Amino acid sequence: MAVCANGQCDFPDMHEVAGITLGTACAGIKQNIKDDVLVIAMAEQSTCAAVFTQNAFCAAPVHVAKAHLSHAPRWLLINSGNANAGTGDQGMQDTLQCCKQLADKVAGQAEQILPFSTGVIGLPLPVVKIVSALPFVLSNLALTNWEKAARAIMTTDTFPKGVSEVITIDGQSVVINGIAKGAGMIQPNMATMLAFIATDAKISQTLLQACLANATEQSFNRITVDGDTSTNDACVLMASGCSLAPEIRENSLHFQVFVDAIIRVCKKLAEAIVRDGEGATKLMRIVVEEAMTDEEAVRVGKTIGHSPLVKTAFFASDPNWGRILAAVGRAGVENMALESIRIYLDDVCIVRNGGRADDYTEEAGQQVMNNAEITITVKLGRGIAVQEVLTCDFSYDYVKINAEYRT
Amino acid sequence: MAVCANGQCDFPDMHEVAGITLGTACAGIKQNIKDDVLVIAMAEQSTCAAVFTQNAFCAAPVHVAKAHLSHAPRWLLINSGNANAGTGDQGMQDTLQCCKQLADKVAGQAEQILPFSTGVIGLPLPVVKIVSALPFVLSNLALTNWEKAARAIMTTDTFPKGVSEVITIDGQSVVINGIAKGAGMIQPNMATMLAFIATDAKISQTLLQACLANATEQSFNRITVDGDTSTNDACVLMASGCSLAPEIRENSLHFQVFVDAIIRVCKKLAEAIVRDGEGATKLMRIVVEEAMTDEEAVRVGKTIGHSPLVKTAFFASDPNWGRILAAVGRAGVENMALESIRIYLDDVCIVRNGGRADDYTEEAGQQVMNNAEITITVKLGRGIAVQEVLTCDFSYDYVKINAEYRT
Repeated sequence: MAVCANGQCDFPDMHEVAGITLGTACAGIKQNIKDDVLVIAMAEQSTCAAVFTQNAFCAAPVHVAKAHLSHAPRWLLINSGNANAGTGDQGMQDTLQCCKQLADKVAGQAEQILPFSTGVIGLPLPVVKIVSALPFVLSNLALTNWEKAARAIMTTDTFPKGVSEVITIDGQSVVINGIAKGAGMIQPNMATMLAFIATDAKISQTLLQACLANATEQSFNRITVDGDTSTNDACVLMASGCSLAPEIRENSLHFQVFVDAIIRVCKKLAEAIVRDGEGATKLMRIVVEEAMTDEEAVRVGKTIGHSPLVKTAFFASDPNWGRILAAVGRAGVENMALESIRIYLDDVCIVRNGGRADDYTEEAGQQVMNNAEITITVKLGRGIAVQEVLTCDFSYDYVKINAEYRT
Repeated sequence: MAVCANGQCDFPDMHEVAGITLGTACAGIKQNIKDDVLVIAMAEQSTCAAVFTQNAFCAAPVHVAKAHLSHAPRWLLINSGNANAGTGDQGMQDTLQCCKQLADKVAGQAEQILPFSTGVIGLPLPVVKIVSALPFVLSNLALTNWEKAARAIMTTDTFPKGVSEVITIDGQSVVINGIAKGAGMIQPNMATMLAFIATDAKISQTLLQACLANATEQSFNRITVDGDTSTNDACVLMASGCSLAPEIRENSLHFQVFVDAIIRVCKKLAEAIVRDGEGATKLMRIVVEEAMTDEEAVRVGKTIGHSPLVKTAFFASDPNWGRILAAVGRAGVENMALESIRIYLDDVCIVRNGGRADDYTEEAGQQVMNNAEITITVKLGRGIAVQEVLTCDFSYDYVKINAEYRT
């Protein structure tokens, strides 16, 4: 089940990104016959940035991708169906072996390949299957394979996730495409979230990395389904430099336009992941306003977004302001004044002056609750910082899917 | 539903605590006809310690009880059915009015009364009902009313919770009784956890407060059902000084014996609360060993105990080691070595050398999982600190109870 109001789960038409080609194949890693290997090839002179999971126990491919990032990567090798996590030394050998085999076939260096794996934890990576599929993958590299690529990286996702944007820099078009997989960070066993974003802009690696760090902080780090983070999370931003636009330099107007576009793309991908949250029936947009700092606003937003009590109430379409208020109260913000806090469901005020708003009616609250997308606005009355966190509700199906999932 | 293996949900025979009397009545606050008002009276010269919720938005009675604690309290006035939380100024007036009315009837000062409320949030406290019930309550004060008291403070609890211990100090008996309410800190709307502990020991207020702070840290602060804390949590420790034992002084052997007993009582009450966790089918005892510090051990234990993924897996009796390992990895402990970590379900090793233990079998794991009480032991291989966290699993019924609950 996915929250697909307004048809937002449809895969969009994707522009081509000059200098970026994609190829897929079915290596037979999963039980069903679906593409499970993806190679993304970047033109020479491309730059590449990446951010990785904060989990102390990174999977083998994360260790290798981190190490290879500084060697001017030209290829991404991604498989779904097996996370190569909790696999010890053998897992490292297996990942390095896959990189070496691909390098041989493309006449590159193993260090120029960034590996990514997502799927079941604790099983050995089927290296032979992956390597055997590579010739077919490489023979199919094309500018147009974005949807195929988005499908090849899916695990428990119920729909492929893609975004395509075009911006204009100095009168020239610059394309930004992104694909992602993940059903709401609720499946460490299935290795959670991967996102691959590519542009034909020309930009230095240093600047690209800063741009990606900024964008992920405002997008993927602002979504939560159940607070669990995985051993394999990664987000990559590639820039081929093949567009006709001039190089994007620091502190320029072009840079700001570019950063804003990357943030937009990341936010849309992050939102798609929450929409696909397992068992989700509602998308909850938690906007915290009037905070002293951004950090404070995010902390309040995430405390609400993590609360199983709030999430089950939303599943039941219950405008339970007591639970939201209690979550704000335990967010660890010092010297908060209960009297200053106002809480809204869409534009209906439910809390004011330390309790239920005088003019609140059960009917008004109930009407908002019947929507598939709801904005919870919390005004702290302490400052001017505003931040947003996305989450989904907590349903019978969440328990069912996660209780019945077996390695 | 409650995890009541070994008949541990039966209410125990309670000793009398000299100098401590209890009286109850049905004031009609709840919809059903059950006792909902409790007064606990302490002999003159009693000392009294208390700890309160960390939630920034305390309910009115918590504010008043905090303020009154330094005025040598003699009476506790407790009601269930209404939490007097989210009630603004009126809530404060109502609580103070109840204290004043009880003070008049016992010829004491309003400041000598500690008020506690638990129940629905956001509705005005029915002051008239409570005050009308006081004469009956006071006429029934008795040494023997512990079970009645435990029942009078229940809200969504499915069984009353009590513990009674006798220790010997200098050849004299000292009794420690405790009662508690709370179904696993999962109902801020119903105002969560209250515990009242009384002893006939003679001990200064300062020492008593230190003792209680120590004990709650090792008991009530080590249990989690879903990470939500309430606006009304409180735990009170009363000492009447009526036993024949000598006064308990700091740094004495007697003090250590006394502290250990208070910790035991608090731990048993805390465990009873987890056993009554809503929808709980399994009690999970998470023991973190070989940590560098106690704080680190608690952090790892709570991260596992809060993880909906781990909790749903236990509900499904799935020995899902990948989820436990991922939770350890995101606990925020720096420089953890995956290779050093060992994880056990009861005495079955499931993780060793960075992955599934070689000698682990699905049958062995499954056998442990079929138990109603399971110990998860995590050995970090970094030091010698050991701490324990208690939690329960996460079931369909958890979602059902919390989704269907309406104010």
